[in-house]
Amino acid sequence: MAGASVVLPSDEAQHLTRVLRLDEGAPIVVFDGRGGEFDAVVAKKGRAGVLVAVGRRRVTTLRESRVHVTLVQAVLKGDKMDAVVRDAVMMGAAAIQPIVTTRSEVTLPALRRGRRPERWQRVAVSSAKQCGRAVVPPILEPAAFDDIVTPGSIGAAVMFVEPGTGADATPLTSLVLDMPSEVAVFVGPEGGWTSTEIDAAASVAHLVTLGGRTLRADAMAVVALAALFTLWKEF
Amino acid sequence: MAGASVVLPSDEAQHLTRVLRLDEGAPIVVFDGRGGEFDAVVAKKGRAGVLVAVGRRRVTTLRESRVHVTLVQAVLKGDKMDAVVRDAVMMGAAAIQPIVTTRSEVTLPALRRGRRPERWQRVAVSSAKQCGRAVVPPILEPAAFDDIVTPGSIGAAVMFVEPGTGADATPLTSLVLDMPSEVAVFVGPEGGWTSTEIDAAASVAHLVTLGGRTLRADAMAVVALAALFTLWKEF
Repeated sequence: MAGASVVLPSDEAQHLTRVLRLDEGAPIVVFDGRGGEFDAVVAKKGRAGVLVAVGRRRVTTLRESRVHVTLVQAVLKGDKMDAVVRDAVMMGAAAIQPIVTTRSEVTLPALRRGRRPERWQRVAVSSAKQCGRAVVPPILEPAAFDDIVTPGSIGAAVMFVEPGTGADATPLTSLVLDMPSEVAVFVGPEGGWTSTEIDAAASVAHLVTLGGRTLRADAMAVVALAALFTLWKEF
Repeated sequence: MAGASVVLPSDEAQHLTRVLRLDEGAPIVVFDGRGGEFDAVVAKKGRAGVLVAVGRRRVTTLRESRVHVTLVQAVLKGDKMDAVVRDAVMMGAAAIQPIVTTRSEVTLPALRRGRRPERWQRVAVSSAKQCGRAVVPPILEPAAFDDIVTPGSIGAAVMFVEPGTGADATPLTSLVLDMPSEVAVFVGPEGGWTSTEIDAAASVAHLVTLGGRTLRADAMAVVALAALFTLWKEF
């Protein structure tokens, strides 16, 4: 990318001209979403868009997390999923896998029709920019719980369950799981997991609770990631 | 309170009649905000309000956190403080002390004029109800940073600082602080603490960072509490 001229996407171009009000010649920093950050200059502003001349790759000091966390998040109601994506990207999740569960109040076709995954990817880009992450985690294709939770399909996995479900879960801080290189972290929908889902997950995932607390569904992911990163000394 | 008849506050009365649509005789659970939960019955609905007959105290299974955390939070812009109060109550903070710092974009008189503390207390009540906490943490009188951070005035304290401020801070997971019975947790405003504030706090608080991550100011409190509760095995 260094040495190239790039046309900015239209929303970034509008942000640059209308919000930041930058002129030609203004120095900026661009990132490719895959870990690369580059010095750059606004080369040309015109009706067709904004052209940027990309210079040297910057040495980024912000390292990514040593553990590659895929947040497997049951899709929440309304725009709550936007907040979850924003927070998970801020926290350093490496990928986000939206899933539809028995108690989800949305279907896979409805998500596609509403172009929700594209929306979540834009939220991820915006959050990465805000938090100075040079990597934009991919929003994976939404899937059904049953298609994700199949023996052999996932490596290390942790599923957060509500206290008192009767499931054989341990408090998070009693979890015996050395920091894995990759882990899937399962967070359920507003209504929680069904007992069938918990049983199915029990064979592939560690079931954990967060003490006796009742957390809002849209706050679970950020709390789960903060707790796991503390446990694995990533903080 | 058991055996008493109580008139519900008007917002609770409206919630009961218009949202929950409960009739006279309906069984409900009420809480006194100080740890007590009671079986009760809707005794009378009228123009003057809703009268509730309070029965036996319930044995609550949800214990409060063993560590009494006061979140000392710099007031944030707009309604972001509402979200912080909501999340801190959900996480189990025992009290919330709003403070005005050098980089806060609000003054103490403006907070009082806007009746913001009263608003935050209502948010705290609502969050306690939602999360099944029988205790509503008090919102303490907003104060200036300098009035809170005076040697001898606070016991155990932890201040979260941004990485790279040059302050002599340790990563959170290297914090050597056995679970105290009481602790003040300091979280700064959007613009961060000034170096003067960090220096002042250094003599009374442990300065910690959360790795190299840049977190949004309105997300810091929930992440800080999640991390500390994990460290102290409260999860």
